[in-house]
Amino acid sequence: MRVKIEAVLSYHFFAPTDVVLAVEAIRSDDQFVVSDCLAVAPPCQLTRADGPEGLGRRQWMAANGEMTVTYDGLVDVTRGPVDLSGLLVPPRRDLPSDVIAYLFPSRYCQSDQFAPFAQREFGGAQGGDQVLMIADWIYRKFEYFPGSSNETTTAADSFVSRQGVCRDYAHVLISFARAVGIPARMVSAYAPDLQPPDFHAVAEVWLNGSWHLVDATRLAPVDNLVRIAVGRDATDISFMTIFGMAELRDQRVAVSVVEPVPT
Amino acid sequence: MRVKIEAVLSYHFFAPTDVVLAVEAIRSDDQFVVSDCLAVAPPCQLTRADGPEGLGRRQWMAANGEMTVTYDGLVDVTRGPVDLSGLLVPPRRDLPSDVIAYLFPSRYCQSDQFAPFAQREFGGAQGGDQVLMIADWIYRKFEYFPGSSNETTTAADSFVSRQGVCRDYAHVLISFARAVGIPARMVSAYAPDLQPPDFHAVAEVWLNGSWHLVDATRLAPVDNLVRIAVGRDATDISFMTIFGMAELRDQRVAVSVVEPVPT
Amino acid sequence: MRVKIEAVLSYHFFAPTDVVLAVEAIRSDDQFVVSDCLAVAPPCQLTRADGPEGLGRRQWMAANGEMTVTYDGLVDVTRGPVDLSGLLVPPRRDLPSDVIAYLFPSRYCQSDQFAPFAQREFGGAQGGDQVLMIADWIYRKFEYFPGSSNETTTAADSFVSRQGVCRDYAHVLISFARAVGIPARMVSAYAPDLQPPDFHAVAEVWLNGSWHLVDATRLAPVDNLVRIAVGRDATDISFMTIFGMAELRDQRVAVSVVEPVPT
Amino acid sequence: MRVKIEAVLSYHFFAPTDVVLAVEAIRSDDQFVVSDCLAVAPPCQLTRADGPEGLGRRQWMAANGEMTVTYDGLVDVTRGPVDLSGLLVPPRRDLPSDVIAYLFPSRYCQSDQFAPFAQREFGGAQGGDQVLMIADWIYRKFEYFPGSSNETTTAADSFVSRQGVCRDYAHVLISFARAVGIPARMVSAYAPDLQPPDFHAVAEVWLNGSWHLVDATRLAPVDNLVRIAVGRDATDISFMTIFGMAELRDQRVAVSVVEPVPT
Repeated sequence: MRVKIEAVLSYHFFAPTDVVLAVEAIRSDDQFVVSDCLAVAPPCQLTRADGPEGLGRRQWMAANGEMTVTYDGLVDVTRGPVDLSGLLVPPRRDLPSDVIAYLFPSRYCQSDQFAPFAQREFGGAQGGDQVLMIADWIYRKFEYFPGSSNETTTAADSFVSRQGVCRDYAHVLISFARAVGIPARMVSAYAPDLQPPDFHAVAEVWLNGSWHLVDATRLAPVDNLVRIAVGRDATDISFMTIFGMAELRDQRVAVSVVEPVPT
Repeated sequence: MRVKIEAVLSYHFFAPTDVVLAVEAIRSDDQFVVSDCLAVAPPCQLTRADGPEGLGRRQWMAANGEMTVTYDGLVDVTRGPVDLSGLLVPPRRDLPSDVIAYLFPSRYCQSDQFAPFAQREFGGAQGGDQVLMIADWIYRKFEYFPGSSNETTTAADSFVSRQGVCRDYAHVLISFARAVGIPARMVSAYAPDLQPPDFHAVAEVWLNGSWHLVDATRLAPVDNLVRIAVGRDATDISFMTIFGMAELRDQRVAVSVVEPVPT
Repeated sequence: MRVKIEAVLSYHFFAPTDVVLAVEAIRSDDQFVVSDCLAVAPPCQLTRADGPEGLGRRQWMAANGEMTVTYDGLVDVTRGPVDLSGLLVPPRRDLPSDVIAYLFPSRYCQSDQFAPFAQREFGGAQGGDQVLMIADWIYRKFEYFPGSSNETTTAADSFVSRQGVCRDYAHVLISFARAVGIPARMVSAYAPDLQPPDFHAVAEVWLNGSWHLVDATRLAPVDNLVRIAVGRDATDISFMTIFGMAELRDQRVAVSVVEPVPT
Repeated sequence: MRVKIEAVLSYHFFAPTDVVLAVEAIRSDDQFVVSDCLAVAPPCQLTRADGPEGLGRRQWMAANGEMTVTYDGLVDVTRGPVDLSGLLVPPRRDLPSDVIAYLFPSRYCQSDQFAPFAQREFGGAQGGDQVLMIADWIYRKFEYFPGSSNETTTAADSFVSRQGVCRDYAHVLISFARAVGIPARMVSAYAPDLQPPDFHAVAEVWLNGSWHLVDATRLAPVDNLVRIAVGRDATDISFMTIFGMAELRDQRVAVSVVEPVPT
């Protein structure tokens, strides 16, 4: 299906500030970027870099004063329905070198601490079924509550409070998956059906030799997500990393399915 | 029933060190101290102080070198079976002034962070039944695993790892109870049936106008526990608080029921 | 000197909610309450309890809907200049029983973790001079920055970020003092010279056999503070503990010296 | 100079266990591996993977029972003296894509939390001089104390206690460097002059367009270190990551300079 994206970010920067933008759709087999355009007003120098894992794009932006970033994109998502059931975890020794890191704990995902709990609670299933069991557990046990977390909240914090937003649901799922030996990473995305519209964050797990999307929030189907960036956790995939101080003026994200993929 | 206690603590202190001992049985209505004796070899100056809440005794000890503390006691425990079911939480405004603090979080019991979880998970019961529901939940979800925690482990840490010893079980129970509005405190105790024999730690909850023992570990019945000290959490009830460095040489605790209470 | 206090707290409570108020001046030797009055509009049931350590007053308030609490007081503060230099820490064994707890870590003051740092950094002085050294260190190393902390921030968090408000300065000072063996507690207070006017929080340390005020923020002299409540840390002295949800509508505190104490 | 390495690791595995070994010297411009050999007894399947950043090697090992890993290597280190003074931080927009992640916080390096402190404390210098200022500060303020930390200790924990081992010194240095905007990563290494001999851990900072070693412990010069693995922090560079339980039987590391570099 074809997804239309319009994102507008307005910030006030109090001084010259380096900013990493990560708002552009990843070009990959399952999402074909028909057209997209990133614009900054007033114009400023943008320096392009690859996203984490060489996927997607980052832009270094020399920000100052009032600035508005606009991203428009048209993306054909062709991944088809995502069904994890029956998918297997490969033997660890077959993991590609660059997947190994996703077995390890990271800033917001203390998978090491969750190991005894996760292995006991989710020991009744394997592979994709185990991931579904984990996602279902989180969905049932957590309350989606905007404002209940902030940028310092870790998976352990969320596990204690049983509250959070998409970022926190993803962190907990990733922590549990790693704790039971399944490589897991975080993904920022545009989600056509998300209400209220906003940037979304979900997880990916490594099963049957490739990455598969999974979202414990159930706020939007992962089939038509447009992925922006991947990484270990929220540290890697922030749509805007600001090396200094700034004030949000306005932020709007509009994502819609404009036409179904022709059959 | 009559309980006989023998405790021996041998430590090496590398320098003159202040130590707070809290090993003596509390004198109270439900545990009558028939006789007890605290001895230190080689002899050193002991300065007596009251325990927290004015219950029990502490001894300041001017320790140095090799020292052995011996405590022998004979205590008649007459509290009868403890049954929490049906007990009620009084309206908060009726709490005695010195019970209010036991609604609040403490060093190892971050009850504030657990509030959303505890209120949702244990909302189906009230008062004593709610405490039993909490104790049962902890018993089922946790693994008693010596060596899985240390003196810095908090209730939040234990909740994440789902492992611990009596100290950790008590911290989690206390945190949940406070989180649902039930005053709860920690108790160190001698437990006749504990295997292996050691100091024990349990919780007390304030219901129907008095404190009631509860132990989520199920390692020993609380009916015949001999209480040593009470407080907010492990910080207050340690049997030995050492203001300096020391090395444990030997520690033995023997507690047995020597005769049943005459009928 | 005579201090005049006017405090107004307006909140909206979304449901019947228990609240502990702790806004009334402590009656003690060094602050004589000439007159004071606590009023709630619309009227609701207040149930009085003692404050922590038997000092000051708490009021249980059965809150609901829009409520405004007003406290007016006239207090003669006669403590004279507070000078810690030269004051001594008594031998630990001479500490009154109820002071011992203030050597221990608490919810927001992890004094145990700070011990190696505090003992090395502040080892060059003793007693009151050591406390002054600690207060001076905090004043120089920290930035007073409203909004940089919240109600979950601990002394360890503040130590890492080196930012905070009066609550955080007090937590760090208390942690360091306990870490070097000086009993320390937290105090909420009305401060005549505080800008902008607000509730204030400072520390008290136990030296020469009594408690002495100390304030690492240097925002207001402690000589004319009117103490409201004391306790282990912020958990014990909050001016308003709300067992539920509420929204702040208005909060104003006016404190002024209305006449010097006649000589 | 030519460095000779002998490492022996003996462990008992209680069940079939996946292990990642990372003990082999990195092949790079500044360290030429003349010869090396990794052997496991009894023989077991090893599956090779690249180390983080494509540097060095990892081996997946299907471990079970008593197993001894032996690594022998002969490496010519030709990096010459490392001097950071005067080296510059490039503008952020010139950072290679794969260096950006080293500006971000990681599991054990909460650089985000240290930002206010680090920017104020180390604001008096730039680039390499700033790194030297940071390393010197850590060396002066910390006590190297074996046993004072464990595998869960973070940079924030170490900063509070001011104690640690090489791992902790590196975590703190990395956190400060990132907090002032200098990319920093962790490096495991063989150090000829380390006493007692063991695996070593140091940091690398990105200055003047390449990575430079720095060691706040001052336990061994970085000039003749043989690097084993690099990564975000201890999670990435562990010489042995065990997905299960094992007991250490023996661990010996011998590293020596066998001949100076010919002049």
